[in-house]
Amino acid sequence: MQQRIVVLAGGIGGARFLRGLKSAVPDADITVIGNTGDDIHLFGLKVCPDLDTVMYTLGGGIHEEQGWGRAGESFAVKEELAAYGVGPEWFGLGDRDFATHIVRTQMIGAGYPLSAVTEALCRRWQPGVRLLPMSDDRVETHVLIDDPDSEGRKAVHFQEYWVRLHAATPAHAIVPVGAEEAKPAPGVLEAIAAADVILFPPSNPVVSVGTILAVPGVREAVASAAAPVVGLSPIVGNAPVRGMADKVLEAVGVESTAAAVARHYGAGLIDGWLVDTVDADAVAEVESAGIRCRSVPLMMTDVEATARMAAQALALAEEVRA
Amino acid sequence: MQQRIVVLAGGIGGARFLRGLKSAVPDADITVIGNTGDDIHLFGLKVCPDLDTVMYTLGGGIHEEQGWGRAGESFAVKEELAAYGVGPEWFGLGDRDFATHIVRTQMIGAGYPLSAVTEALCRRWQPGVRLLPMSDDRVETHVLIDDPDSEGRKAVHFQEYWVRLHAATPAHAIVPVGAEEAKPAPGVLEAIAAADVILFPPSNPVVSVGTILAVPGVREAVASAAAPVVGLSPIVGNAPVRGMADKVLEAVGVESTAAAVARHYGAGLIDGWLVDTVDADAVAEVESAGIRCRSVPLMMTDVEATARMAAQALALAEEVRA
Repeated sequence: MQQRIVVLAGGIGGARFLRGLKSAVPDADITVIGNTGDDIHLFGLKVCPDLDTVMYTLGGGIHEEQGWGRAGESFAVKEELAAYGVGPEWFGLGDRDFATHIVRTQMIGAGYPLSAVTEALCRRWQPGVRLLPMSDDRVETHVLIDDPDSEGRKAVHFQEYWVRLHAATPAHAIVPVGAEEAKPAPGVLEAIAAADVILFPPSNPVVSVGTILAVPGVREAVASAAAPVVGLSPIVGNAPVRGMADKVLEAVGVESTAAAVARHYGAGLIDGWLVDTVDADAVAEVESAGIRCRSVPLMMTDVEATARMAAQALALAEEVRA
Repeated sequence: MQQRIVVLAGGIGGARFLRGLKSAVPDADITVIGNTGDDIHLFGLKVCPDLDTVMYTLGGGIHEEQGWGRAGESFAVKEELAAYGVGPEWFGLGDRDFATHIVRTQMIGAGYPLSAVTEALCRRWQPGVRLLPMSDDRVETHVLIDDPDSEGRKAVHFQEYWVRLHAATPAHAIVPVGAEEAKPAPGVLEAIAAADVILFPPSNPVVSVGTILAVPGVREAVASAAAPVVGLSPIVGNAPVRGMADKVLEAVGVESTAAAVARHYGAGLIDGWLVDTVDADAVAEVESAGIRCRSVPLMMTDVEATARMAAQALALAEEVRA
C-alpha cells in the first residue's frame, strides 16, 4: 500500500524539501498542508506566496536561483503600477505570477474557497502532491515592531516585515491574526489522522509550521496522530539555513539552536528530530527532552542531497514507530 | 475666454478625432463624455475599452497602428491565463493594459466611483481634456443575435459580438442594459449645459454616441443645450470609415449612408452635420431635414487632416450659431 505522508510546509524551504521527498519516495501519497499566514492582498489581488512557491517548485515553474516567483519572468505590470503611483513597490510580483493571482482572486470572488482554488490552480501545475491550504479562512501573520514614528510599537504584515524591512528591526511578537477563528481546510484533519508519517520540513518553526499549528485543531490532530511525527532542523550551526528564522525565534523566546527548536515543538508534538552533523552535540540534549534524534547532513544543496535528508527522516519515523 | 467644447466619444474614432481637435484648438477647454457601454468584466477586472482608448491616445501611450491597447505591449499575463485554461482568449489584454485594469478594479473595490477612478488614471496620462465616463453606473451594451445552438436568439455582450464574432452575424437589436436606471456621471450634464460647442465625432452612432445618449438626461441636455451641436459622419461613401458600424445601424433600421445617420440623430438633436466630399450629394437631403450640412474631407489619415475636420466642425458650429 502507498505510504501516506503529510508535510506541514512553508515556502522555499518546504518546497525544496518536498522536491527531495518526492524524489526519495516517488510512489508515496503526499499531502502538503501549506501555510497561508503569509497571504497578502496586493493591488486588490489575493497573493498566497507559500502555496505558490510549493506549486511552482513541484510543478517546474519556479525561478530556481531565487526560490520564489516564476522562471522567465517579466515585470511590465509592476512597472505600470509604479507609473500610476500605485504601490507597494517592495513586493516583486512578475507578470506570470500576476496571472496566478488574477485567477485566484476571480475564483474567490465567484465564491470558491481557497482550497478549491488551490486545487484548480494545481490542475495546471500537477505538483504530484495534494496541496491543501491550512485553512480556507483568512489568517494574516502580523509582526509587532518598534514604530520609528512614535515611542510605541506597531503591527505590520509579515510580508512587510520580511520583504520590505528584511527583518532588520526586532520582532516583539508574532501574531497570526484570525487564526483563533479559523477552521482547518477540508481534508486537513482527515489527512493528519490517516497519515503513516507526518513530517515538519526545515521550514520556519514560527511563521510557517507554527502558523499552521495555530489553526485550532491542527496541533491537537498532529499530537494525537497515530503516525510518527519527525522534524528537520531549519537551524544549522546556530544560524538559519536560509531566511531570517532567528529573528522570529527571538520574538517567541526561543534560541536559534537546533535543540531549542526541537524543545519548542516539544515531545508532545514531535517524536523524532534531525539535526545537521555540525550540531551532533545537540543529539543528547534533544533525546533528553524525550525526542528521538539523529545527526545527518541537512543542507539542501541539490535534489539528491535533499532526497537523502527525506529518506533519513522517514527512516527515523520507522525507528520511532518500531 | 476659453472655448468650452463637449465631445461625446466612443473608442478609436473618437480618440483620433479628439487628437485632431486638440491640435486645431490647443487652448480650448475640452470635456469628453466617454462611452462605457463597451465596458466588460474580464478575469474579475473592470475593463473600460473606450475610456482607455481616449486616455492612451491623448496621453501618448496608444498602440498607433492598432488604435487600441498600449504601445510596446507584451502578453505574459494573457499567455499564463490561457495556460490555466481561463478565458476568454478572444479579448487581447496586454500586460501594460492589465495594470490599468488592476488599478481601476482595486479603486472601485475600495468604493470610488468610475468617474473618480478615471480622473485618477488620467493624472498619470495627462490627456489634456477632462475625461468623464457617461455614467458611474454599470451599463453594458448587449447585442441580440441568432443562437447557433437553437432556433432562437440570444443576447451577447457587445465585445463578444464585436471582437469575438467580428460582427459577422446579423444584429437584431442593440440593448444598453442598465442604461434606463443609470444616472449621468457628476459633471456630465453641467458640462453639456455650459458648453459653447457640442461635437459628435465620427464615432459609432449606435453603440458609442447612441449609448451615451441613452443615459437618461443626456439626450435631453444635448437637445436643449444653448450650444450648437455638430456631428461628423462616420459613414463615407455608404460604408463605415472603420469598424463595422453598418452592422449595428442595420439593427436599428438605419441605412449606412451619411444622410441616414444625420436623420437618425435628427434636427431635434443636431444642428450641423459634416459629410465627406464623396457624399456631397447628401448635403441637400440633410439640409432638407433641417440640419445645416457641409461636405469636407472626412478621412482621419493623420493629425493634420483630422485637425482640419475639427476646424470645419467648429466653423459649422459658428455658422449655426450666427
